Amino acid sequence: MVNQKSLKRFLQYRLSLIKFQRLGFEKVFSYNLGKDVGVTAEQVRKDFSMFGLKGSKRGGYDIKYLLKTIDEIFKRNGERQVIIIGMGNIGQALCNYQGFKENNIIIVAGFDLDPAKYSKKYAIPVHSTDKMEEVIKKNSIRTAIIAVPEFAGQEVCDQLVSLGIKGILNFSPVNLKVPEDIVVNYVNLRNELESLFYYT
Amino acid sequence: MVNQKSLKRFLQYRLSLIKFQRLGFEKVFSYNLGKDVGVTAEQVRKDFSMFGLKGSKRGGYDIKYLLKTIDEIFKRNGERQVIIIGMGNIGQALCNYQGFKENNIIIVAGFDLDPAKYSKKYAIPVHSTDKMEEVIKKNSIRTAIIAVPEFAGQEVCDQLVSLGIKGILNFSPVNLKVPEDIVVNYVNLRNELESLFYYT
Repeated sequence: MVNQKSLKRFLQYRLSLIKFQRLGFEKVFSYNLGKDVGVTAEQVRKDFSMFGLKGSKRGGYDIKYLLKTIDEIFKRNGERQVIIIGMGNIGQALCNYQGFKENNIIIVAGFDLDPAKYSKKYAIPVHSTDKMEEVIKKNSIRTAIIAVPEFAGQEVCDQLVSLGIKGILNFSPVNLKVPEDIVVNYVNLRNELESLFYYT
Repeated sequence: MVNQKSLKRFLQYRLSLIKFQRLGFEKVFSYNLGKDVGVTAEQVRKDFSMFGLKGSKRGGYDIKYLLKTIDEIFKRNGERQVIIIGMGNIGQALCNYQGFKENNIIIVAGFDLDPAKYSKKYAIPVHSTDKMEEVIKKNSIRTAIIAVPEFAGQEVCDQLVSLGIKGILNFSPVNLKVPEDIVVNYVNLRNELESLFYYT
């Protein structure tokens, strides 16, 4: 399985490549990209070779070719659909997040235990968790965001996995137990902030 | 400088220790903690020894003692103050985020370029960025959250550093250039989500 760290680097390479392209370049070298993204040229070449991306020693890598391949890796050419479970502050912020919208990432629906949220006006329809199976099956959803409180994290995760979800972005501060073929990315906002207080 | 990865692990150990304490334990072994957090026992012992935390081979580590020391590391006994720059969706969600409030993390103020936001009712006062210096000095703020669009990220960062900020939690999708004594934690929501589409 390709690791998440290198996939996230590819997303950084992508932004960097677009920047170079806007500056009028057609080719880049691994050290140009590495410098811009903050990794070594060796790391760039290693990542690229993992996906069979080829350049020439003298001419470098063709930017258009790299961008096209990266877009294929992340299915950027189609709509990419996600659901959110938990419509608290984080869930609500994410369903309005420009960074998703601008990149063809569509949040199809949100789910919450609190019925008061079903009738409120959000940017997306919000349902009872009972409707999760229906929405996932109907839209062939494979990716979900967990934004529920800690105590509910594992239960929601188990449910998602049983409904065929393969990739999870988890904001719940809990270490999820998942089968081997499921990928979880963690965003622990509190730890990210709290760890900084060591220096103050 | 202690690295951020081990500091974040300490925050996970802390939650795990509280759990063990609630279950009636007074002592833990490195393998109990490691198993719960998802790291090796060696890693736990290595992290602990970095801060001079001692246990005994036969009796393990004293939970109360560990928790007290961890609280000191992260200054959990006082109010921990932060500011947010950028009051878009993310900034607004963070200023209502329970995970901060419940942990003595106080968001003192928000800053934004858009004057329409100064009069709106948020959970915190929102000012023009001109007032940043005053607020930082008055409250001796050392930690800030950057939640501005990509194009403004580096400029805001430079300003914060010049005003004495030492730790930055950055949501802006840009690789910040900072002096050696400044620590930046990155949360790139789009990359965390987008990298999952590889598997779908």
